[in-house]
Amino acid sequence: MKAMEDKIRSEAHVLPGEILLVDAFLNQQVDVALLQTLADAWYERFGDRKITKILTIEASGIAIASIVAARFGVPALFAKKYDSHNLTGDRHETVVYSYTKCKEYTIAVSRRLLTADDHVLIVDDFLANGCALTGLIELVESAGATVAGIGIAIEKTFQPGGHMLREQGYEIYSMAQVKRIDVENDTVEFEPVPIIRYDRPEA
Amino acid sequence: MKAMEDKIRSEAHVLPGEILLVDAFLNQQVDVALLQTLADAWYERFGDRKITKILTIEASGIAIASIVAARFGVPALFAKKYDSHNLTGDRHETVVYSYTKCKEYTIAVSRRLLTADDHVLIVDDFLANGCALTGLIELVESAGATVAGIGIAIEKTFQPGGHMLREQGYEIYSMAQVKRIDVENDTVEFEPVPIIRYDRPEA
Repeated sequence: MKAMEDKIRSEAHVLPGEILLVDAFLNQQVDVALLQTLADAWYERFGDRKITKILTIEASGIAIASIVAARFGVPALFAKKYDSHNLTGDRHETVVYSYTKCKEYTIAVSRRLLTADDHVLIVDDFLANGCALTGLIELVESAGATVAGIGIAIEKTFQPGGHMLREQGYEIYSMAQVKRIDVENDTVEFEPVPIIRYDRPEA
Repeated sequence: MKAMEDKIRSEAHVLPGEILLVDAFLNQQVDVALLQTLADAWYERFGDRKITKILTIEASGIAIASIVAARFGVPALFAKKYDSHNLTGDRHETVVYSYTKCKEYTIAVSRRLLTADDHVLIVDDFLANGCALTGLIELVESAGATVAGIGIAIEKTFQPGGHMLREQGYEIYSMAQVKRIDVENDTVEFEPVPIIRYDRPEA
């Protein structure tokens, strides 16, 4: 999406470690008008999927999920993070490895709030190695619910998460796909042709 | 606000420790339509204050701030939490004590994102002892910015935060004011007459 790429070009900064600093519009200050534009695009793609819930992971996905939930007219749902694995019977839980923080943590949602009837649109700010997203998918599937689609604000296509999950059959619609980050020149190169291929499992 | 009180009566639960469990509509699953109703009410009260930013604290305030920011047509801004006090020159910082977690943590926002020109509406899900809210006010004032108003989803008026901050001159508009929580009967009693008094400092 051009609006997202333009925003990254004009307001993001590149930091060592192939980090894209987007705190001016996505994950500390949030440009809500931009999020509404993303929400419209995801609604155009996924609006016919009988979505019942928008799922994300705290904290930086919450703003996106809230605005998208408003667009779809359904509740937003946030998986919570826990430092320790503390299995209680009333939650769906899974363990996620964070490359950013170099440690494992547990994510969980209440069994009351995610059930087999749900058709879930998962959204998040970034997709890189795919660990957080894989965890969210596991929560949905352990509830017997359906992953109806995945919306990502910024995908780093030079990392494997998006490719791996598309091969597994998940439909991911990323609003910007970053092919290369050049730290020395503080520039970002986007995929010239959007990567959208996915292989749905045979019915 | 009746809609908020009705929601608490029908979907909240009372837990030992005077805790109000609102994860079905406010801080794990979010009823976005309800938040839009709150946003409308805050806009009616604070819409003439030349608000430039909606500020909250991660994580549970983010959904509210995002929907309110959409209503006001301004960015949302999230103070981030840190376990340690790690003073860097590029952030406004303050230390907050959490009664829920019985420990101190640091909250911070980038100096780039909060400046003396800002008129800030602070929003949060709960107001009880007022520690988090006091921290947010300190961030705004250390930036030289103006606290133009405070919107709270649920205030526990049997705890001192709201009274203390109104006496200091802050205008707080709470959508539900819980006077008493009865754990044995799983019921909540609201203030019969809303507490709205505040004393503006003389100009």
